Amino acid sequence: MKKSQRGEVDPFIVMDVMEAARAAEAAGRSIIHMEVGQPGTGAAQGARDALVAAMGQGALGYTVALGLPELRAGIAALYKRWYDIDLDPSRVVVTTGSSSGFLLAFTSLFDAGERVGLGEPGYPSYRQILRALSLTPVGIPTRVENRLQPTPDDLEGVDMSGLIVASPGNPSGTMLDHAALKALMDHCAAKDIAFISDEIYHGLHYDTRAVSALEISDEAYVINSFSKYFSMTGWRIGWMIVPQSHVRRVERLAQNMFICPPHASQIAALAALDCIDEMEANRAVYAKNRLLMLEGLRAAGFTKIAPPDGAFYVYADVSELTDDSLQFCSDILKQAGVAVTPGLDFDPVRGKHTLRFSYARSTAEIEEGIARLKGFMAGYTKP
Amino acid sequence: MKKSQRGEVDPFIVMDVMEAARAAEAAGRSIIHMEVGQPGTGAAQGARDALVAAMGQGALGYTVALGLPELRAGIAALYKRWYDIDLDPSRVVVTTGSSSGFLLAFTSLFDAGERVGLGEPGYPSYRQILRALSLTPVGIPTRVENRLQPTPDDLEGVDMSGLIVASPGNPSGTMLDHAALKALMDHCAAKDIAFISDEIYHGLHYDTRAVSALEISDEAYVINSFSKYFSMTGWRIGWMIVPQSHVRRVERLAQNMFICPPHASQIAALAALDCIDEMEANRAVYAKNRLLMLEGLRAAGFTKIAPPDGAFYVYADVSELTDDSLQFCSDILKQAGVAVTPGLDFDPVRGKHTLRFSYARSTAEIEEGIARLKGFMAGYTKP
Repeated sequence: MKKSQRGEVDPFIVMDVMEAARAAEAAGRSIIHMEVGQPGTGAAQGARDALVAAMGQGALGYTVALGLPELRAGIAALYKRWYDIDLDPSRVVVTTGSSSGFLLAFTSLFDAGERVGLGEPGYPSYRQILRALSLTPVGIPTRVENRLQPTPDDLEGVDMSGLIVASPGNPSGTMLDHAALKALMDHCAAKDIAFISDEIYHGLHYDTRAVSALEISDEAYVINSFSKYFSMTGWRIGWMIVPQSHVRRVERLAQNMFICPPHASQIAALAALDCIDEMEANRAVYAKNRLLMLEGLRAAGFTKIAPPDGAFYVYADVSELTDDSLQFCSDILKQAGVAVTPGLDFDPVRGKHTLRFSYARSTAEIEEGIARLKGFMAGYTKP
Repeated sequence: MKKSQRGEVDPFIVMDVMEAARAAEAAGRSIIHMEVGQPGTGAAQGARDALVAAMGQGALGYTVALGLPELRAGIAALYKRWYDIDLDPSRVVVTTGSSSGFLLAFTSLFDAGERVGLGEPGYPSYRQILRALSLTPVGIPTRVENRLQPTPDDLEGVDMSGLIVASPGNPSGTMLDHAALKALMDHCAAKDIAFISDEIYHGLHYDTRAVSALEISDEAYVINSFSKYFSMTGWRIGWMIVPQSHVRRVERLAQNMFICPPHASQIAALAALDCIDEMEANRAVYAKNRLLMLEGLRAAGFTKIAPPDGAFYVYADVSELTDDSLQFCSDILKQAGVAVTPGLDFDPVRGKHTLRFSYARSTAEIEEGIARLKGFMAGYTKP
């Protein structure tokens, strides 16, 4: 049976690590999970209670394609709470996780063959989703002195129809401040490059809060999700803010491509918006873990670390320790029982010299993991 | 901000009807809903109970991209129950409704610019999703004498890389028997045309059961869902069966495009597989409604009806009654308080002469709706 070219997307390299970790656990070993990109906590109690109540009250049929009106209004209100922005709820598109936000944004903005820029290191699925949609990903190498984020200088002379930026970033956790984000958006506006801002880690900051693209201009697609701050990864529920003039086209695409986001998840998400105390308690755990991680990794010998402003990741340059991050991760897993992610998924070129550590799990796990990493590194010499 | 050409998909015309119905109800009028494509019933009690239990037991994080292994095994077992087929669970891809099945199938099979055939009348989103993926939909007019399904003769000389077929069909409810389905699949196999079988209405038959493409060949993509027979539309949970040699590529696409189907919906769907009595009770209601509908519509004057073998629709040729099905639907809604769907969404050319009636709601509603239609038609003359 025939196959397409665009369906030949890359596998996730981290899957091999996760499978090795799973096999080790199945064989009875204790593994500390620093490879995962999701909270160990679940949806808020209030969110689950709301769904139980709704399931007793009637069929959860299709909703309208853009999502329950009260959820769209609740998300708009979050922009007032977080950024002091008055956002028209009609611009809010409820999505099936940020994943469907990317699919909607890329099809609404770009035709087959167009080129879309993304900073490296970055979320690997940007590149693969673009390929699956017959678009050309254009990797833009970033520099530590720019917090591993692209700058207008990096974009000079690069032919592209769009740019996707994440702040805080994955895998780095680094953020763009207001001036740096504005400089990128001004550059794109001047060159008619569509600007897509992935704000999925907003809410998870440990000093200054993240800046939304909407604080700078309405001419952007802003993608967010209930997965991270609201701890609802498996619920597949997120949102996107689009310019008013793009709402109808995105609605038509969403009607056809998705019909609607999961109704049960919409109900849980609506209630989650009010569960601030529980979410802030999660954030306090990440904040504590982050400090433990920064101190512990440095003490263990991981000293070249990108500034981890937000999210729940630390991205380390290990070029002085290895030239093969995949093998290095495999050794750490086998010898120390700690699963960490090699940088290759995030940066196909330089990722052989980098690792991502996640601190999204419990503090006790982080403490144990750091102790193990210290033990491993004490006996480690570069091959 | 720039916009793509492929994002310019058509709106659903039925949305205007639904909005008019909603407005009439908001103004206090009683409206009978024969326009809806979903059951009035919800997920099975056992499905909801399973989710309540799971929500009390731990975080519903990401699952693996292809879905919970026990759900994949349960779906494979359904093929034994329904068709007496031994299906390897590794070929089962759990999807976010049939919608994500279409997105995965089309990207896995076709590159930008390729042509994909679909029978007219048919599900309107096929056409729009294809467009959004830079593919070219090729409408194939079907004939009542062929149960409004395409035949190999209809495909002769048509340049296409794939064909999507639905049996039972929407809007017609008509089915392809084993010989007719085999003839189409043989034709496609001989010409290297990828065959996609949309089996979303399987389980909802009223005489002979529907034939699955997998009873004929493993060389097909088969798309199905928990939405219709299992009455779980808003849960956005479905599945796809692909040839063994396509599993890994579809897995990689699914990892990147969707991460995973909604975890909560997977848990509910797994339990739903065992709730046969409740689902069969729903089917008994549709069976009764179908007989009432066929008799009632004929008595009212809708006499040219495609053979409604399955699903919960009746598709009527109203060319002797109107040349403008949209206006006709508007008149029926205003004067009789019955919402029905004009054929234009399903067949852009001939749909001005057709209507779709759904009998998915309660028997009492169907009875009232038929009484109102009879009253309307008694006073109706073609303009």
